[in-house]
Amino acid sequence: MSVTYPAGFTASGVTAGFKPSGLPDLGLLVGAPGTVAAGLFTSNRVSAAPVRLSRVRLAAAGPRAVVVNSGQANAATGSAGDADALTSTAFVSLAMGLDPDDLLQCSTGVIGEPLHLDLFEDGAAKLVASLGPRGGDAFARSIMTTDTVDKQAQADAPDEGFRVGGCAKGVGMIAPDLATMLAFVTTDAVVPARDLHRIAQEQLASRFNALTVDGCTSTNDSVLLFASGAAGGAPVAPGSAAWVHLSEAVAKVGESLLRQLAADAEGGTHVLIVEVTGTGADQDARVIAKAVAGSPLVKTAVFGGDPNPGRVLQAVGASGIPVDPDRLDVWFGETQLAAGGIIAPDYFTGGEVAETARSHMHDPDVHIRVRVGDGRGKSRALGCDLSYDYVRINGEYTT
Amino acid sequence: MSVTYPAGFTASGVTAGFKPSGLPDLGLLVGAPGTVAAGLFTSNRVSAAPVRLSRVRLAAAGPRAVVVNSGQANAATGSAGDADALTSTAFVSLAMGLDPDDLLQCSTGVIGEPLHLDLFEDGAAKLVASLGPRGGDAFARSIMTTDTVDKQAQADAPDEGFRVGGCAKGVGMIAPDLATMLAFVTTDAVVPARDLHRIAQEQLASRFNALTVDGCTSTNDSVLLFASGAAGGAPVAPGSAAWVHLSEAVAKVGESLLRQLAADAEGGTHVLIVEVTGTGADQDARVIAKAVAGSPLVKTAVFGGDPNPGRVLQAVGASGIPVDPDRLDVWFGETQLAAGGIIAPDYFTGGEVAETARSHMHDPDVHIRVRVGDGRGKSRALGCDLSYDYVRINGEYTT
Repeated sequence: MSVTYPAGFTASGVTAGFKPSGLPDLGLLVGAPGTVAAGLFTSNRVSAAPVRLSRVRLAAAGPRAVVVNSGQANAATGSAGDADALTSTAFVSLAMGLDPDDLLQCSTGVIGEPLHLDLFEDGAAKLVASLGPRGGDAFARSIMTTDTVDKQAQADAPDEGFRVGGCAKGVGMIAPDLATMLAFVTTDAVVPARDLHRIAQEQLASRFNALTVDGCTSTNDSVLLFASGAAGGAPVAPGSAAWVHLSEAVAKVGESLLRQLAADAEGGTHVLIVEVTGTGADQDARVIAKAVAGSPLVKTAVFGGDPNPGRVLQAVGASGIPVDPDRLDVWFGETQLAAGGIIAPDYFTGGEVAETARSHMHDPDVHIRVRVGDGRGKSRALGCDLSYDYVRINGEYTT
Repeated sequence: MSVTYPAGFTASGVTAGFKPSGLPDLGLLVGAPGTVAAGLFTSNRVSAAPVRLSRVRLAAAGPRAVVVNSGQANAATGSAGDADALTSTAFVSLAMGLDPDDLLQCSTGVIGEPLHLDLFEDGAAKLVASLGPRGGDAFARSIMTTDTVDKQAQADAPDEGFRVGGCAKGVGMIAPDLATMLAFVTTDAVVPARDLHRIAQEQLASRFNALTVDGCTSTNDSVLLFASGAAGGAPVAPGSAAWVHLSEAVAKVGESLLRQLAADAEGGTHVLIVEVTGTGADQDARVIAKAVAGSPLVKTAVFGGDPNPGRVLQAVGASGIPVDPDRLDVWFGETQLAAGGIIAPDYFTGGEVAETARSHMHDPDVHIRVRVGDGRGKSRALGCDLSYDYVRINGEYTT
């Protein structure tokens, strides 16, 4: 159900013809009138036309729907791409009698190819006709590109009687040239747009920013949060118990989607979770955590089942954040393998400590913890290992 | 000959026992009395003990020799590592009757393992006894770890009668845990230490900093430049014709070593050369060039023979440098595949333009050029593609 789990949402997913495979590739998510939205978009300077369109519409009006096509990114397409984004969304808003400004757009797929407007024109009626309150599954499947499974999540805030649902896609920046991480989260709580944006920032931004499959920020990354208000009651006010519960439910859905994304990452055989503590600022810890989770040497070590503290120290030292090399502690799972910047002798002699760490490397989730000092700053990054399949997916199947 | 090509240098390389393979693993390069040195070292905060020792000795005295062991990095070894660096160099300087402060040290190999001092003690006499004016080849081979070939270069400044030679090693940050890029350049020109440092900065720093195999800055990276003065004559003065010729010869040797390093990069099947023009400052161009050359998606595309302009645009946009996405031009070889941020339609339809670019991908050197505007800033990065072998070398053979 996911995005249609909360009241006040309908969704659909159909085959329009973007994907040669014939799998569903056009999705629509619509909130009831009064629904408000918040969005987080890629920081890539080369942003796609649908990202630019959605940014403008979110800033200007109160969009309550989003159309998603998978197979074409409509990125690096210039002003023609902007015109195509306008036209393609117009086909859909016309078909459902929606104000064009109320419709957001996400696109994921091949970069640079001009958008096939005819597929929007032909598919719009079917897409709208398929809308339904149980359409969340179809929507979640229609946004997939090289994802091997759909990613859906839901959570409740029973005290207040509202629900949160979500779905996401993304397995790497591109494969073969299929871009983008997309996530959609819905709730039926009553939340003014400005407060909804705050929840998106607080509960979703840092979470999704902690994900790194290959360090490649897509041109089309988007996270959209919708609140239909269908659960009724007073607006959820910042600081109230309802606010905390809504935040927790959104966080729970976001966390679940994040884990599902990391687990389905291109070629990944392990989820890699890097926690960094002891910096002055959280931001410094975040940079270090992403440097470790993104290091090809750490990633190949995880693929090879090697709890390699030297590679972690190397990545920490190269992160650009000033650290005292003589204060660095590193754990793999529960096992400390470097203390005060010195690697445990056991790692080389293959003693019991090393064996405990090595056995942790067989777990689906590999935890690396780094303490860099006594500061209160901390952060986390999620990623995956680097395997032959990443090279195969991104190298071999492009021609 | 390489490092012993200029007059005033002797070198040697012997098997001391650091490498299980029994291949040469201890090298010594000595300049005649009066030789001056300049050094460039890793920016990694986790620097190795030999790097710290060499930094101190370069700042304090006038070192004229360097001992190199391959097989152990003496990094992440704490203050015991510093003591071991002192002791190990003392064995060598004692054996050759050299002031300890005159001897620099480089180490490359496994991170974290305590240095085998006995191997220095046992090997020092043989190492010193082997010193000779034709020892450059033996030295160049003794510093190799997973390098498949030794890297040597030489150049002349015939007008002034002086020579420049050099050798280097390094194929990735670590494999399996064998770290480090090392380069040694020698000349017999007469150059005061301060001016020599300037030449190292001007001709070697930016060149070696442009190299990225996997974006992983080693704990032990070092580039050393020695001038013996054995060619005689007046000191080479900044701004003189001799200065220009010396700079050119050092640049030529540096460039050759750089290309040899990129060509032998771990798992690399192509050298990747990324040129960026049109930024305001050179530094911005450098960041963009390294972002493109370091992008796993660009690297796998090069491995797959795909001249993929979308992945290049993605990497440029994500580099953190502000660029106008509508001004981005991209060439593969001589073929323009993106203009004004828009990808050439031919890339998708497989027309003649795309075929020309695709055939360039079979060349040993793949050239990617990016123009981001009208600024005068420009820079370059050298790297390699990302292949199965990189994953194999760094993933499988660690345990």
